[in-house]
Amino acid sequence: MTEALVRCDVAERVAVVEMNRPSALNALSDGLLAALTGTLTALAADPAVRVVVLKGAGKAFCAGHDLKEMQAGRAAPDGGAAYFADLFTRCGALMQLIPAMPQPVIAQVQGIATAAGCQLVASCDMAVAAEDTRFGVNGVNIGLFCSTPMVALSRNIPRKQAFEMLTTGEFIPAERARDLGLINRIAPPDGLEAETMTLAQTVAGKLGAAVRIGKRAFYEQAGMPLDRAYDYTRDVMVENMLLRDTDEGITAFIEKRKPDWA
Amino acid sequence: MTEALVRCDVAERVAVVEMNRPSALNALSDGLLAALTGTLTALAADPAVRVVVLKGAGKAFCAGHDLKEMQAGRAAPDGGAAYFADLFTRCGALMQLIPAMPQPVIAQVQGIATAAGCQLVASCDMAVAAEDTRFGVNGVNIGLFCSTPMVALSRNIPRKQAFEMLTTGEFIPAERARDLGLINRIAPPDGLEAETMTLAQTVAGKLGAAVRIGKRAFYEQAGMPLDRAYDYTRDVMVENMLLRDTDEGITAFIEKRKPDWA
Amino acid sequence: MTEALVRCDVAERVAVVEMNRPSALNALSDGLLAALTGTLTALAADPAVRVVVLKGAGKAFCAGHDLKEMQAGRAAPDGGAAYFADLFTRCGALMQLIPAMPQPVIAQVQGIATAAGCQLVASCDMAVAAEDTRFGVNGVNIGLFCSTPMVALSRNIPRKQAFEMLTTGEFIPAERARDLGLINRIAPPDGLEAETMTLAQTVAGKLGAAVRIGKRAFYEQAGMPLDRAYDYTRDVMVENMLLRDTDEGITAFIEKRKPDWA
Repeated sequence: MTEALVRCDVAERVAVVEMNRPSALNALSDGLLAALTGTLTALAADPAVRVVVLKGAGKAFCAGHDLKEMQAGRAAPDGGAAYFADLFTRCGALMQLIPAMPQPVIAQVQGIATAAGCQLVASCDMAVAAEDTRFGVNGVNIGLFCSTPMVALSRNIPRKQAFEMLTTGEFIPAERARDLGLINRIAPPDGLEAETMTLAQTVAGKLGAAVRIGKRAFYEQAGMPLDRAYDYTRDVMVENMLLRDTDEGITAFIEKRKPDWA
Repeated sequence: MTEALVRCDVAERVAVVEMNRPSALNALSDGLLAALTGTLTALAADPAVRVVVLKGAGKAFCAGHDLKEMQAGRAAPDGGAAYFADLFTRCGALMQLIPAMPQPVIAQVQGIATAAGCQLVASCDMAVAAEDTRFGVNGVNIGLFCSTPMVALSRNIPRKQAFEMLTTGEFIPAERARDLGLINRIAPPDGLEAETMTLAQTVAGKLGAAVRIGKRAFYEQAGMPLDRAYDYTRDVMVENMLLRDTDEGITAFIEKRKPDWA
Repeated sequence: MTEALVRCDVAERVAVVEMNRPSALNALSDGLLAALTGTLTALAADPAVRVVVLKGAGKAFCAGHDLKEMQAGRAAPDGGAAYFADLFTRCGALMQLIPAMPQPVIAQVQGIATAAGCQLVASCDMAVAAEDTRFGVNGVNIGLFCSTPMVALSRNIPRKQAFEMLTTGEFIPAERARDLGLINRIAPPDGLEAETMTLAQTVAGKLGAAVRIGKRAFYEQAGMPLDRAYDYTRDVMVENMLLRDTDEGITAFIEKRKPDWA
């Protein structure tokens, strides 16, 4: 019987999703992509889950695509063209699923996060990394420019620094990743899980409906001109204000007591 | 007789606008929102004013909306829906007025700048803060996600860091706010006013027409694709070049003397 | 016989382009603009060139437009309006040519990079600077707001910091420019060329077709919404995967050997 490609444990409103191909540095094979997409899709529909933590089993967070599987795709009559198009469509759908989920998703990163693995980190809403983690979009080193990872990376870090990572293929350490905006927090390797869970529990303790409303609005308004962003978020604020629990939350604050939330 | 909700003093081409509800940490009540909008609207039309400084009386810059007043709005037959929509429309209009004013607006920040108070800082063109200031978009702590403050905040600081502030409700110190891009400069508390006024006077000493042209162009071009941004700013540069005082400014520079500006 | 306004040397797949008006701090006269545009246009069509380094002869990288020449333009019957419009069109075309070139362009910066000189740095894909370099968009000091340099600058560094540079006209040192994202790397003055050439050679050693594909995609996807960016880069990835040399690059990686690239 085979080990599951993705493990998922839910405890105290936090789902911990673990990519489980440690011998392949959690490379995103067709199987792992499908399992991860399935798991996250299911969690997105679970109102009991407030926060998702995404991590990788073993030494590395994720080393990107499964190169051997990709090369095998070339055996098709079209040289792999249809397979590659489908693969990058499925991978891109996963990367877009993460910000589209109602719950915040936090990457817990150790070892290396490279190519599509770095893209996963960039696609998560937040990220915590062990201080010895290294990040790279190093596909250029083997002749495959990280064009899809670039979509997520270039929406996290400044332009020239993204360009440098993409064209040199060089890795950056966790501290640099934090300074650039790719990750939020750094922890010693043996404190990584605790630091990540502290962040997860902090967010899980907020009013779930407010966080859901807010996360959706966060990405929706990001690309709008200022006036449209304000029209849109005004309506979001009104929706939020009219929640029973928000009424209770504000009243409790005024009365200097804890809110009585469902 | 009541104290004015907003004080305004103009000296040496710099208007200092002070929010004056110190006992409420300058919370943006309907009255303060109206007074501030009225004062800034009047200043926008005053060609003698070159720079506006926005500050708060007392211990805090601004603690966001007036929660008691908001809760009172729930007494309406619609549960406050119309009032909240109107309130966030008026607040959003103020936040959009600041970048639309012809003069640069500098926030002078001390104590705390939270929720809509943090949004005010983010909406100003520049900001100087006392080194012990704390910034937060902490509405999530009481069940009201800071969706409108997010509009301004997310246009100032990197994505993951904005997301963290919004979903954890945690405060950041002034130094971190500067590193992230939310503010420009830090000063010791007893040097805050001097540092802010030095920056204000530096800008007030430039050719007013050039600064006006430039500020408008700054925000106009920000959302344009590269080619349209260049077409647009080319015309802005020509308009600027054809000003009599710009001719004089360049000539004076070539002749190594001070310009004779009106 | 006059010295060429632009020198160009190609060696080991790297073209070094030098602006050569050192006595004018490489100010972008009509002649230098034309020569630089011509040189870069020719290099863009040369498949043997993998990376372009742009530098300035003498003490400064580039001090912006040629002010004396601009002032002379006022002698026309229209006060210079048509000349200025044409000048900024030509200058903007140069600034847009750099990201549109198939090869990465690296600015090698020393001394000062001011106004349109700072815009050149911001327009390059990457930049390395001597540690004593100073950067400014200081046109406001002579009454000419740096509206066109702003287009490039504001796509490199955070909003409030760009606004401060533009309205104060103050210079920032190289270390600050790196922290803000305007440049990539800093070197001691006597190590600047070596550091720049190391970066250039690193990129020149990658598969040229992959870098070309990637650079084009980098700027194309930047302004797209997330879903369109992923649709677009999916096709880019497929195109890249189907290159013979990418097949070889991935196979060589799997086989732990050097790729046999053309």
